[in-house]
Amino acid sequence: MTTRRVVVVGADAAGMSAAHQAIRANRARGEEIEVVALEMTQDTSYSACGLPYWVAGDVDDADELVARSPERHRELGIDLRLGATATELDVKDRKLTYRTSAGDTIRIGYDDLVIATGAAPVIPDWARTTEGAMVPGVRPLKDMTDGHAWLRTLNPTTSQAPAASPSPRRGIVVGGGYVGVEMAEAMHRRGWETTLITRTRVMSNLDPDMSARLETVIESAGVTVIGDTQVSELRTHPDGSVAAAVTDDGTVYPADAIVVAMGVRPATGFASLAGLPVGKTGGLLADESGRVAPGVWAAGDCCEVKHRVTGKWTFAPLGTHANKQGKTIGENLAGGEARFQGVLGTAITRFVAGDHHVEVARTGLSTAEAEEAGFTVASLVTEGRTASGYMPEASPIAVKVIADAYSRRLMGMQIIGGRAAGKRIDTAAASLWAGLSVDDLASMDLAYAPPFATVWEVVQLAARRLADRM
Amino acid sequence: MTTRRVVVVGADAAGMSAAHQAIRANRARGEEIEVVALEMTQDTSYSACGLPYWVAGDVDDADELVARSPERHRELGIDLRLGATATELDVKDRKLTYRTSAGDTIRIGYDDLVIATGAAPVIPDWARTTEGAMVPGVRPLKDMTDGHAWLRTLNPTTSQAPAASPSPRRGIVVGGGYVGVEMAEAMHRRGWETTLITRTRVMSNLDPDMSARLETVIESAGVTVIGDTQVSELRTHPDGSVAAAVTDDGTVYPADAIVVAMGVRPATGFASLAGLPVGKTGGLLADESGRVAPGVWAAGDCCEVKHRVTGKWTFAPLGTHANKQGKTIGENLAGGEARFQGVLGTAITRFVAGDHHVEVARTGLSTAEAEEAGFTVASLVTEGRTASGYMPEASPIAVKVIADAYSRRLMGMQIIGGRAAGKRIDTAAASLWAGLSVDDLASMDLAYAPPFATVWEVVQLAARRLADRM
Repeated sequence: MTTRRVVVVGADAAGMSAAHQAIRANRARGEEIEVVALEMTQDTSYSACGLPYWVAGDVDDADELVARSPERHRELGIDLRLGATATELDVKDRKLTYRTSAGDTIRIGYDDLVIATGAAPVIPDWARTTEGAMVPGVRPLKDMTDGHAWLRTLNPTTSQAPAASPSPRRGIVVGGGYVGVEMAEAMHRRGWETTLITRTRVMSNLDPDMSARLETVIESAGVTVIGDTQVSELRTHPDGSVAAAVTDDGTVYPADAIVVAMGVRPATGFASLAGLPVGKTGGLLADESGRVAPGVWAAGDCCEVKHRVTGKWTFAPLGTHANKQGKTIGENLAGGEARFQGVLGTAITRFVAGDHHVEVARTGLSTAEAEEAGFTVASLVTEGRTASGYMPEASPIAVKVIADAYSRRLMGMQIIGGRAAGKRIDTAAASLWAGLSVDDLASMDLAYAPPFATVWEVVQLAARRLADRM
Repeated sequence: MTTRRVVVVGADAAGMSAAHQAIRANRARGEEIEVVALEMTQDTSYSACGLPYWVAGDVDDADELVARSPERHRELGIDLRLGATATELDVKDRKLTYRTSAGDTIRIGYDDLVIATGAAPVIPDWARTTEGAMVPGVRPLKDMTDGHAWLRTLNPTTSQAPAASPSPRRGIVVGGGYVGVEMAEAMHRRGWETTLITRTRVMSNLDPDMSARLETVIESAGVTVIGDTQVSELRTHPDGSVAAAVTDDGTVYPADAIVVAMGVRPATGFASLAGLPVGKTGGLLADESGRVAPGVWAAGDCCEVKHRVTGKWTFAPLGTHANKQGKTIGENLAGGEARFQGVLGTAITRFVAGDHHVEVARTGLSTAEAEEAGFTVASLVTEGRTASGYMPEASPIAVKVIADAYSRRLMGMQIIGGRAAGKRIDTAAASLWAGLSVDDLASMDLAYAPPFATVWEVVQLAARRLADRM
């Protein structure tokens, strides 16, 4: 009997979680499997979420972002092939074709295939030259190569910095999502005059009133925010490098560099060509076990996932889901019956610059999402403190609770506040996970001591105030 | 028709929550009620939990601890009588007798009585003179008067401090619970040579292994911890003030001051004399509506409460419960159908001194409590970080998960760690509230970004590791 071969495409969180879990779980039942992992880049298992903090200077060394190096994966028994790009999939014959960095084309058979190709940044036409290359000075922040490039651009101590700038360098971030806000922080902290331009508003997955609160803090820290505006074209210097962005209202914003942070799309080219099921956003649609077709599995940012509150498919590219999905598939590749339980849309970030420290978090449905899903929304913003008012730790915090007016079920929560504000969202996430009502949240026994909370913990106070009005 | 009269005994969290909620809720249905509140001391609605932080110097002014002053209660329509001690209750005739500070005895009728007399500190015999007074230099930390006294004793800038101390002053804290640990912090931060003596161990409501971790930090910060030891007598100076504590093994610990932090007991004297139902600890037993007898209600630290995991009565004196119970009664005094939903035993504190910052939290049942309640316990300690390892915010954190081995239901959690560790307990509290399993906790969608968590949030990693072993 030949050894069962698992081929994994993409050697980051989802793929490598699946690979290692599959090896461990099979070994636990006395079976050895062969795992071949194909990775397009030269990097494996790094923290993409950590890139902005590396660029901003919080992280000293790129190596710290790498959870497992290629060497380590190989030591653990994985046949890792770097610079390998999957090009064609034959689901029926269980064969995958890939191209090596040397230009060779290789066809490999598999018993099980794990697609974990992640997502690719959205690059608008204006960011490219007529030849299709990126305009110099313009790039996204998606992988380690981007991180290195941004570090060279932003960090004035590197040799690539101009010998003498007559004035602060000017940067533009296009996009107001998580990466956009985090890169605006990085640019600003690096001493750049920073403008964030967003098609809608900062963090558009928050309700507009909460988004406005965040924008106020970011602007007061010194970043200019231009909302409801799109970049339509670039101006370039004679050498071809970026000189300015021109917006749809004709305004010209001079810029020495532009971060393209307009989101990501599932990277499913070869897989969708093979006729595998994909959703509205182009993400693969796997069942709860992670399977998309006989012998084919998919995990991570190349997938859509089920939202637990709406029951609908959604695109939620996050390392947390990627790891859980990967582990699920790994167990199932050893005859397990693991199930990925879906997502709530929980997310968190912060904006820190000088004395400004704001944390922002959300879970569940926003008001617009809840209404679109057919719920009748009741919501309320409560302002409170992160600690008893008399403690030096006390920071302002605003909590928006979103509920279904009929069932009183919690639908979502959004938080904006100072230090120790953001992670309180997990209490709401756990409550949502369990399908609790706002009354349940208002009643529960949460931790109180003066350095940590007000006696009515603010998350709970917010739920109670809404419950009292419903 | 005469106005309905509600008499409230005890003008702190529970009593005043009930009083104000009753006024508001009755007003909302067009009825005015008369509320008479009797308070033994001269203080109302202050944060007892804040006292150690005031003594330590985190809070500048005692007034900041007062949520609502006597004047404010009166403005809001309450007939507040300070220095009034309830002495006798006639449940059948609905009459209460109290003594004024002037020594008069007054008998007052009521339609509804709310007993919110709180708890009184346990004072051992050794702390008293043969005449029954407290030995000078020895006292608990229970009310504002105690706070003022400790501030004068510990703060070297006040005039009461000795003109010139030849060496650091020496303090002893007797008791290793929340108040004990917080007062050890206060003494230590005030420059006192501090020894904490406890009958069992520091935070005995934690499992012994977690308690030991906390003890290690407290000791490394410079506080001496003497466990499994009881104070049996005191030595005094010729002027009668305390000179030393002698423990049951005969050791003599010189001391300039001693904090008695040996816990509290329900203060239910007149109420239990009236034949109202009390539990093992002497706390009143109210039903979920807050009622203990016809026309008699009780809330706060003078009560036992139902533990949601065991279904049994327990004594959990905490402001959070007092507020919720008070609000419940207030609503029911206006014909409402509010129910107090019980407790989980959630608690949190910290020990901070110099570079040492440790947070400790717990919820649900400890291993011993779960075993006593008849569960077969599976538990595991997981060590992790509060943020991604490469972030400057990352602190060590240890999470112990306690579960029922048969049902896989979460039973409890204990956390010890650095900054941002403690409040993660709320995720477990919400999960416990909903009766979730360790598998649920391991699967849920919690907030991740590098400054806030590892990609497998440590609380969840801890649940997953235990789930994988069960």
